[in-house]
Amino acid sequence: MARMLRVNMDDIITKFEEIPEPYQGLGGRALTSAVVSAEVEPTCNPIGPMNKLVFATGLLGGTNCANSGRISVGAKSPLTGGIKESNSGGMSGAHLGQLDIMGIIVEGQPEAGKWYKLIVKAGSAELEPADDLAGLGNYDTVEKLKEQYGEKVSFATIGQAGGAMLSGASVAFSDREQRPTRHAGRGGMGAVMGSKGLKAIVIDPSEGKRPVLADPEAFKAAAKQFAKYITDHPVTSEGLTNYGTNVLINILNEAGGLPTRNFSVGHFEGAEKVSGETLNEITQKRGGTVAHGCMAGCIIRCSGIYVNEGGKYVSKWPEYETVWAWGPNCGIDDLDVIADLDYMCDDFGIDTIETGCAMAVAMEAGLLEFGDGPGAKKLLAEVGELTPMGRILASGTKAVGQMFGVARVPVVKGQSLPAYDPRAVKGIGVTYATTPMGADHTAGYSVSANILSVGGEVDPLKPHGQSELSRGLQIATAAVDSAGLCLFVAFPVLDYPDALGEVVKMLNARFGLELTGDDVAGLGQKVLEMELDFNQRAGFNKAMDRLPDFFKREPLRPHSEVFDVPDEELDATLQF
Amino acid sequence: MARMLRVNMDDIITKFEEIPEPYQGLGGRALTSAVVSAEVEPTCNPIGPMNKLVFATGLLGGTNCANSGRISVGAKSPLTGGIKESNSGGMSGAHLGQLDIMGIIVEGQPEAGKWYKLIVKAGSAELEPADDLAGLGNYDTVEKLKEQYGEKVSFATIGQAGGAMLSGASVAFSDREQRPTRHAGRGGMGAVMGSKGLKAIVIDPSEGKRPVLADPEAFKAAAKQFAKYITDHPVTSEGLTNYGTNVLINILNEAGGLPTRNFSVGHFEGAEKVSGETLNEITQKRGGTVAHGCMAGCIIRCSGIYVNEGGKYVSKWPEYETVWAWGPNCGIDDLDVIADLDYMCDDFGIDTIETGCAMAVAMEAGLLEFGDGPGAKKLLAEVGELTPMGRILASGTKAVGQMFGVARVPVVKGQSLPAYDPRAVKGIGVTYATTPMGADHTAGYSVSANILSVGGEVDPLKPHGQSELSRGLQIATAAVDSAGLCLFVAFPVLDYPDALGEVVKMLNARFGLELTGDDVAGLGQKVLEMELDFNQRAGFNKAMDRLPDFFKREPLRPHSEVFDVPDEELDATLQF
Repeated sequence: MARMLRVNMDDIITKFEEIPEPYQGLGGRALTSAVVSAEVEPTCNPIGPMNKLVFATGLLGGTNCANSGRISVGAKSPLTGGIKESNSGGMSGAHLGQLDIMGIIVEGQPEAGKWYKLIVKAGSAELEPADDLAGLGNYDTVEKLKEQYGEKVSFATIGQAGGAMLSGASVAFSDREQRPTRHAGRGGMGAVMGSKGLKAIVIDPSEGKRPVLADPEAFKAAAKQFAKYITDHPVTSEGLTNYGTNVLINILNEAGGLPTRNFSVGHFEGAEKVSGETLNEITQKRGGTVAHGCMAGCIIRCSGIYVNEGGKYVSKWPEYETVWAWGPNCGIDDLDVIADLDYMCDDFGIDTIETGCAMAVAMEAGLLEFGDGPGAKKLLAEVGELTPMGRILASGTKAVGQMFGVARVPVVKGQSLPAYDPRAVKGIGVTYATTPMGADHTAGYSVSANILSVGGEVDPLKPHGQSELSRGLQIATAAVDSAGLCLFVAFPVLDYPDALGEVVKMLNARFGLELTGDDVAGLGQKVLEMELDFNQRAGFNKAMDRLPDFFKREPLRPHSEVFDVPDEELDATLQF
Repeated sequence: MARMLRVNMDDIITKFEEIPEPYQGLGGRALTSAVVSAEVEPTCNPIGPMNKLVFATGLLGGTNCANSGRISVGAKSPLTGGIKESNSGGMSGAHLGQLDIMGIIVEGQPEAGKWYKLIVKAGSAELEPADDLAGLGNYDTVEKLKEQYGEKVSFATIGQAGGAMLSGASVAFSDREQRPTRHAGRGGMGAVMGSKGLKAIVIDPSEGKRPVLADPEAFKAAAKQFAKYITDHPVTSEGLTNYGTNVLINILNEAGGLPTRNFSVGHFEGAEKVSGETLNEITQKRGGTVAHGCMAGCIIRCSGIYVNEGGKYVSKWPEYETVWAWGPNCGIDDLDVIADLDYMCDDFGIDTIETGCAMAVAMEAGLLEFGDGPGAKKLLAEVGELTPMGRILASGTKAVGQMFGVARVPVVKGQSLPAYDPRAVKGIGVTYATTPMGADHTAGYSVSANILSVGGEVDPLKPHGQSELSRGLQIATAAVDSAGLCLFVAFPVLDYPDALGEVVKMLNARFGLELTGDDVAGLGQKVLEMELDFNQRAGFNKAMDRLPDFFKREPLRPHSEVFDVPDEELDATLQF
């Protein structure tokens, strides 16, 4: 029977409990947002004792459904001041599912300067002192934990940034090789974990059992058919598999929507050198790994291994958004430099999008030149040392703008924009502006219909139709995030009319329900409503749902477009 | 005939214009807030080209009315994200009045790195290059300007902090000795001035004429009677005159409402050593100046001159809030250290309240010990050098909390709380929470009835009655701030029933009007309504009108009180 684990850091105690009625039937983002919404005072300080940090596996977590092992992390965000859910791959989602633990709620705050680790097994959850891990990066942290806990466990850890409670800090989840390469990156969830004095969670699934399915046969049939849709779709079987998410560099560059040098132009002259195609070529040549899954049960396998010329591990394949943030957006055209920066971000435990954007703003401020890769590495290293400059960088894009007098700061609700310029991809601009998460492409990936011709086509340069596009995707995404599915299953789901039905069949077969596709959409809308309500109680109104003014004033080359979706359409997007 | 001066920094041109109809009859805060409200897009970046910086003299500015020379500075605040009016003493308010210039609107933005000064005379307003002043502190800036423009002019300048567009930066106004000691300190108005490339404004009243009065005789009679109320009242003729605003240290300490060591206790064991009484004694002994006015026409004269043991100028008498911010709030009990810190803040051009609070948070973070005066001076010196640490400090209390992982951050809407603990002086807590300005004691000084028994008595420890008290004072203050009157005239106005009538008579005699006392209150309410509306359009709702959570959780010794004014009463305070 699925349970919740409540971890109280005031008293250093843990307690398994039955899933409270209001949280029953919820997983992933639906569960984290429900807990945060119900249990966190919206006006509290995000790194104070009144915030809560929630981990949740998805509704399909721990099952044999392909790509169902995502893990959600939720809290009030130190970066946005609003509600936050950030989800990640890695092994921990599946492991929690295999322990039949739907969620972990971490509350309270220990004595300042005390560090703990939480060891979760089938029959127990223990908090133990972890002062020996204090101040370590994620890579060193997992090395030490591996020595003690072996190779069958997974880890959720924070690096120096989370330990210092900096707003750009991530929570790292270990991958299949126990490396801390998968991150709940956005919104400073690592800072909240640090504020709880929690350096690491170790999840040992060895004595666990997979969840009991209400109808194993029906589940198996649906899972098989669902997997077939994934392996049939060219994006999830070829594009992502061969080139990683970085397949998008050339596509966005051609579309004129690749934000370059702090969103000053939509085309990067060095794009080819940092593209997915080049990434694949370098990897093949050097003997790295192409087509590697970040979690068990992944059949898309977009996560390769980047090695140096000597064939030695450098980092996991940097994601498209990471390559973009440190590459085009900083004017850097060298994948070796970008892979090093990616490794450093993973080690320090900071969001690559937020920090790459922050670096670009530092470049605009004149701290270093656009394109200065060695300079970027040197400055980023200060995050690991927690110098004042490092703290500013790790506090995010808005902080760098504030401290260095830059007005062109690409953030919404304090969170940096990702890798798609909203002037050339207007549907994603609507998502950036209106999602309760702050600027976030994963909250409603309108790039699909704007650029990729998946799930229909909406002209990316026209203002109209974008609000409807974003709205539908935001609702669907909230549901996908609640199931624990990797967002990339959206490609087959959007293109094959029956694919969603298989997800619904799996949910029904898992829980003995009779949901319809409409019920799933209803869940997505319910999640958004909870999140919007939290933000409203935290002090936001709809005037927060705006892009920075420079997107409305500065036309973006090559299309010479500004962001011109009317405010009224932004306001209507999530008006339910 | 009163005019406005419009200064366009895009094109480096100035233009005198008739006062536009919607701004007619407005002065001071009413005028700045009207312009910001009408002309600034509320969601713009505060240091970008769409913000405007507005200077305004009061309705009685330039007249012979006592204490009528305040100058207001308004803009969208980089610190709060909302509308801001911050006003100051010094000579510029009267000088603008003598030139019959009601306001200066600075708009646009020049090429980055270019600096200008604005020279305002009776017949002209010229922008001139000021690259030679770039990077200078306020004291060096005015030294250079004095060489060129002589001793009859006044200055509005920014120091290093404003030049770097840091959110805690002030605008300095020169006093009667042309020292840059009077500041529009709160909310980062200096950062906005810096973002306009405007290093200094030089105001030369020599060819100006005092405003033409509609009824000179009536004005003279009312002004005389008004002055008598001021010289009759013990606070404005004795308390403030002899001890400066720092007369409040012992009073607040005795009331248990003197926030000590970052608002952790309400009583400071070193209070006597930094009190107004000690300030007077040291000043007398060393040959400094007691009873000095910061502006012409001041008959309260709360601003003394602090000298060192050799009798040499150190700083103007630090205000109560300055002594508190650097003294009790940082655990420092040495007036010599505090005077040095005050000088440094004036020179760098930063708000003493914001920066002292920021230092206390840095102390709580463990960067230095509470009480470490030399350490505080050393760290503050980094503001002048614009190191990363200096930039964090000069960005304010919230920034220090964010970068150094402190959850006990005493701010409302991003602006630090001043020198009265809201748990022991609950009326001022209502003002902190609800004023559109962010935490600001001057917006509705409930300390009057809570502690000083001026204008009635309201038990400072009881939650009820505080909302009504704050509401009335906020309305009255908005009107006072619009007249250009020093806020301290509120003491006689609150205690002598007929004093307000003399102000109304002066306004009528100045402009040929037939206003009543109710009209003046109506003006105050109108100002607040404009400001609240701007903030709402900037993205705030009433949930922003809250004190930090720790004031509701941590009882304050010695009274063991938490802040317990109900949220509903906060919300009702400015519900018109």
